[in-house]
Amino acid sequence: SSSSSASPHMDPHDEGRKKFKDFPYVSPPHRDLMVDLVSMVENRLDSQLLPCTLPPDVQYYQNESGSASASLHIRSGHKPSKIDFILGSWIHSELPTGGALNITSLSTYLSPWTDAPNFLLELIQSSPTLLVLILDLPPRKDLVLYPDYLQTFYEDTQLDTRRQVLEKIPGARSYISSSLYIRSLVSPTAITVRIETEASGPGRMEEVIKNNIDPIAKEVLGIWLDQCVCVDRAVEETERADLERRDGLVKSKTFEVDLGSSFPRLFGPEVANRVLGSIREYFIV
Amino acid sequence: SSSSSASPHMDPHDEGRKKFKDFPYVSPPHRDLMVDLVSMVENRLDSQLLPCTLPPDVQYYQNESGSASASLHIRSGHKPSKIDFILGSWIHSELPTGGALNITSLSTYLSPWTDAPNFLLELIQSSPTLLVLILDLPPRKDLVLYPDYLQTFYEDTQLDTRRQVLEKIPGARSYISSSLYIRSLVSPTAITVRIETEASGPGRMEEVIKNNIDPIAKEVLGIWLDQCVCVDRAVEETERADLERRDGLVKSKTFEVDLGSSFPRLFGPEVANRVLGSIREYFIV
Repeated sequence: SSSSSASPHMDPHDEGRKKFKDFPYVSPPHRDLMVDLVSMVENRLDSQLLPCTLPPDVQYYQNESGSASASLHIRSGHKPSKIDFILGSWIHSELPTGGALNITSLSTYLSPWTDAPNFLLELIQSSPTLLVLILDLPPRKDLVLYPDYLQTFYEDTQLDTRRQVLEKIPGARSYISSSLYIRSLVSPTAITVRIETEASGPGRMEEVIKNNIDPIAKEVLGIWLDQCVCVDRAVEETERADLERRDGLVKSKTFEVDLGSSFPRLFGPEVANRVLGSIREYFIV
Repeated sequence: SSSSSASPHMDPHDEGRKKFKDFPYVSPPHRDLMVDLVSMVENRLDSQLLPCTLPPDVQYYQNESGSASASLHIRSGHKPSKIDFILGSWIHSELPTGGALNITSLSTYLSPWTDAPNFLLELIQSSPTLLVLILDLPPRKDLVLYPDYLQTFYEDTQLDTRRQVLEKIPGARSYISSSLYIRSLVSPTAITVRIETEASGPGRMEEVIKNNIDPIAKEVLGIWLDQCVCVDRAVEETERADLERRDGLVKSKTFEVDLGSSFPRLFGPEVANRVLGSIREYFIV
């Protein structure tokens, strides 16, 4: 891993940041995509974000045997600002069957000073020929009750055309989360696909990431930056309280259903407790 | 069509009811399924339902050339009761390409005296080998904000196991509505599948309806009858107002997006205006 190039005299937080941006275990086009997305967010929102203050052993951690390692990077928004926090991570875990599980993700949690949707990208690769992609702007309001919100953020932005493109990749079929709550969180234009390239020979997944996923993920993040987070939305006080309640529920359920179940499985209870204890304050209000 | 057996002296409303329950253009297993579902609802809820009061030329209607015909049956609930109204319909339209489009549906709209989910079944057959099935208990609350509601009506009822069974039918893949609003209305356990049986020879679709769809549709309707509409739910006054607002929006958007666009296309403006004018009062408060 290229993390060995980090100077021993480097500030531990800079080192954590560098390690996070290494994405050392994924293929070059996968790494390029993640680095580019993180840079797009940081270039645009840097002035609104505080540095990551997670302890070094939460910014980078591994299990006892060293077969699983991970990096976590959380940057809170200045208060008050439209950003609650932004979370990036990668997880690598050798599988008992040989091969490895690699997950990279970038997700945002906006604050009740805006009602604009969040951004969510997750790439889950459990073999060189199998990839799950989750790419969405999860809504922060009930779309049934707020058709104007659906119109503004999902219809006018033509998000569905991106979903349709990725759905047509050979070997792609829709991926359905086993958690009904996670299914409820995503928008009607969510891209949730499972791509299998077994039949197409080695190197095909890298091509799919580079040629299909990379441009669409950047378009969707561009829509989020230009038409969601950077637009001023008039949020009245009662609405702000509603957003606060809904956002709080989303975060605590995400912590419980998603993070709280996968971390102990991958890293053992001790490491999982340390990491979950450290990020709990972001998710549980 | 067997409607010719209706006596000319029959009360026009009884005649409309009979015509609705004839389902004259669909295959025997499709007709049996619809008749059984309507009977299940009527047997269980009859005492809470008023007779259909639609005019005879709305209970049954056709376009000018006679190439499209339809039947519509709406029964309101007694006031106050947990039922707003229940709507059943069939539509038959000869296609310019030969063949015909047949749609049969049964949907319920509960009142703000309960917050339980609605029931929705729609079978859209545009050729003998192509069927779209929509089967769901559309939620009446934001599932993200009410995880207990998700637990009670969707997790504890194991609705997702039914979706998984139907998804495995050979030739089935997920069907995605072109309307983002319609997509937002359904639950995370919604069955929305497109089943193509071309490769399996004639008669295969009838088998799929009889062996796969029929038992699952009856199970889901059974869940709705036993665990949704017939359970007393404590709805407080403020919640009732919220439900009234959300239900009202759902009905007006359904009227506009779904009925308002398909009826004129199939029956021409004059017939569509008569029918839509007559059912408008149910959907627009």
